[in-house]
Amino acid sequence: MRAVAFSGQDQCLTDREKPEPRPGQALIRIVMAGICNTDVELAKGYMGFSGVPGHEFVGVVEAAPDAPQWIGRRVAADINWGCGACPVCLTTGSRHCPNRTTLGIAGWDGAFAQWLVAPTVNLHAVPDAVSDREAVFAEPLAAALEVSQQVHLTAKTRLAVLGDGKLGMLIACALRHVCPGIVLIGKHAHKLDMASRQGVSTRLLADQEERRERFDVVVEATGREDGLARAMDLVRPEGMIVAKTTVAGTTPLNLSRLVVDEISLVGSRCGDMALALHYLKERLVDVTPLIEAEYDLEDFPAAFARACRPGAGKILLRIGS
Amino acid sequence: MRAVAFSGQDQCLTDREKPEPRPGQALIRIVMAGICNTDVELAKGYMGFSGVPGHEFVGVVEAAPDAPQWIGRRVAADINWGCGACPVCLTTGSRHCPNRTTLGIAGWDGAFAQWLVAPTVNLHAVPDAVSDREAVFAEPLAAALEVSQQVHLTAKTRLAVLGDGKLGMLIACALRHVCPGIVLIGKHAHKLDMASRQGVSTRLLADQEERRERFDVVVEATGREDGLARAMDLVRPEGMIVAKTTVAGTTPLNLSRLVVDEISLVGSRCGDMALALHYLKERLVDVTPLIEAEYDLEDFPAAFARACRPGAGKILLRIGS
Repeated sequence: MRAVAFSGQDQCLTDREKPEPRPGQALIRIVMAGICNTDVELAKGYMGFSGVPGHEFVGVVEAAPDAPQWIGRRVAADINWGCGACPVCLTTGSRHCPNRTTLGIAGWDGAFAQWLVAPTVNLHAVPDAVSDREAVFAEPLAAALEVSQQVHLTAKTRLAVLGDGKLGMLIACALRHVCPGIVLIGKHAHKLDMASRQGVSTRLLADQEERRERFDVVVEATGREDGLARAMDLVRPEGMIVAKTTVAGTTPLNLSRLVVDEISLVGSRCGDMALALHYLKERLVDVTPLIEAEYDLEDFPAAFARACRPGAGKILLRIGS
Repeated sequence: MRAVAFSGQDQCLTDREKPEPRPGQALIRIVMAGICNTDVELAKGYMGFSGVPGHEFVGVVEAAPDAPQWIGRRVAADINWGCGACPVCLTTGSRHCPNRTTLGIAGWDGAFAQWLVAPTVNLHAVPDAVSDREAVFAEPLAAALEVSQQVHLTAKTRLAVLGDGKLGMLIACALRHVCPGIVLIGKHAHKLDMASRQGVSTRLLADQEERRERFDVVVEATGREDGLARAMDLVRPEGMIVAKTTVAGTTPLNLSRLVVDEISLVGSRCGDMALALHYLKERLVDVTPLIEAEYDLEDFPAAFARACRPGAGKILLRIGS
C-alpha cells in the first residue's frame, strides 16, 4: 500500500505492507486524514517518532476478525491504546498507560496510508449526518473539548483561549456553549474574524495587553514556546492555565510567579471522541471554515510543506473512498 | 391594570394599580408568561406568598427612568433581587441574599399582570431569533442548566434525571450537550418519547428498577415528596443527588443511608439567564414541544386549573403585545 513514512527528520512517500488485523483489531481503509501541528512537530523530532504518522482520520472498516458488525461502517478512532494490564490501565484508564501506543504518534502506524489497523474497542461509528471532511476533526475537537472535561467551566468563568491557530479556534468555538462569554485572543485579525462569525468574542493580543484584564482560566493553545509566559500574564492570582501546546524541546516557566500567585497549571491532551462526534452531529461547531486545502496522498510533500507554514489552516489528505 | 392575585390559598383576577418604576428600575409590559409548578405550590401555601405570582415571562420595557437604552427592548429577567448591602450580597452574590425578593415568589409582584417593575440590572435582552413563546422558558431553562453550573459534569459522568415533568425534560434536553449519555427516567411513555425525539436516552421507572444500575449523579426533578427516596435508590455510593423539587412542607430523608453511602445532596434553584438565552438562540434545546396550551390572562382560572392537573405541560398566558 502507499504510505507516508517518517524516520528521524526524513519524510517520504513509500510502499509498505498492507497491515493485517489481529484478534481484537479492525482493518480500516482510510478515506481522509488531517495534518496536525503535532505531525509537524514529529517531523522535527518530537517523540522520536519513526513510522507512518497521522492520527486525525475517517475510514471504513474492511475487516474485523472477531467483530464483524463493524465491517462496512464509517469510523473514527480513539488514538490511545493501553496495555490493559498495568495498574494505570486497571485504575485511571488506558489513556495514561505508560506502555501505551498512540496512533501515528508513538509505536503505532497512523493514517497517512491507505490502510491502518486499530483495536475495535477504540472505534467510534461516524453518524451519517457528519461528512468525511468534518469527521476528520473528531480527534482535534475531542482534544478541544477535553478542557471542559478536566476543569469545571461555568457560564460565569472568565475564560480566555490564547492562540488563534486551528486548535485555539476549535477550543473557542466548542467551549462557547459551556461558557458563552469565552474570549479568543490571537494575533491574526482574519482568523479572529472566522471565530467571531461562529459567535466567539475575540481580541487582538496587542489590545488585550493594554487592557490588563485577568481571566479565571486561560487555555494556552499558541503552539509556541513563549505561549506559557503570555498565559501567565493573562491569568488572575489563584487562576488556572490549561496547557495544550506540545513542542519539541523544553519550555521556560517562571516557577516563582506560579507559586506566589498560586496559579494552577494543568496539561491537557486528547479527549472524548463520542462527545466530539455529538458536537459534529448536532452542528454545535462548524469545523469546515478551518479547512485550507485538500491534497491527494500522492501529493503529500506539497501538502506537508503547506501545513508547515506558520498560520496554516487544516490541510486534508484525500486517501480513498 | 388587570392582574392575578394570590392571598393565602385564594387566587383571583383583580384590578391593581399599575406599578411605577423607581430609580434603577424598569417598567415592563408583559407579553407572555408561563405557569410553573412553583406557582401551583404557592397556591397551596408554599413560601406564604401573597401578591401577584408569575416569574417566567417575556415583556417589553416601557419606561426606565435612568436607563433609557432599555426602552422598547424585549426582555426576560433574573428573578432574584438582593439588598446589595449585606455580607452575602457583597461576597457570594445577591442570588442568596437573606433579604432578597424573588419575582412572583417572595416580596415582589410578578408577571401574571399587565405590567411589572424590575431592577434594570436584572434585565436580559431577548435575541430576535428567540420567539416570545420560547423566551418564557428562559427562566426554567436557566434553572435546568444550573445543574451544570454547580456540578462538574463530563461526557463520562453517568447522569440520570428522575422525573419526566416539564423541568425534568428541560434538564435532560439541555444537559445532553454536556453529557450525551444522560438518561431521563420517568413514568410516562409519551413524555419520554418527547425527550427521546430530542436525542435523550430515556427509561421507564419500572424498567430502571429492574436494572439495579447506579448513577454518578442523579437530578431529582419529580416534584414529589417521595422523589428523594427514589433518587437515593438510583445513585451510587459516593455519588451525588441534585435536588430540584420544591414542595410545601417537609420531605423525609434516610439520613443514615446518606451518611453510610457517603452520598452528596445538593440543592439547586435558579440559574444563569444569559446561558439559557444562548441555548434558546442557538437552538440547542427545543422548548416548544413542552407547551400544552395558551390562554388569555382573563381566562386565568381555567389556565391555572389546567396547570394544576398532574402531568400537565407548560400552560402559557397571553397578556399583551
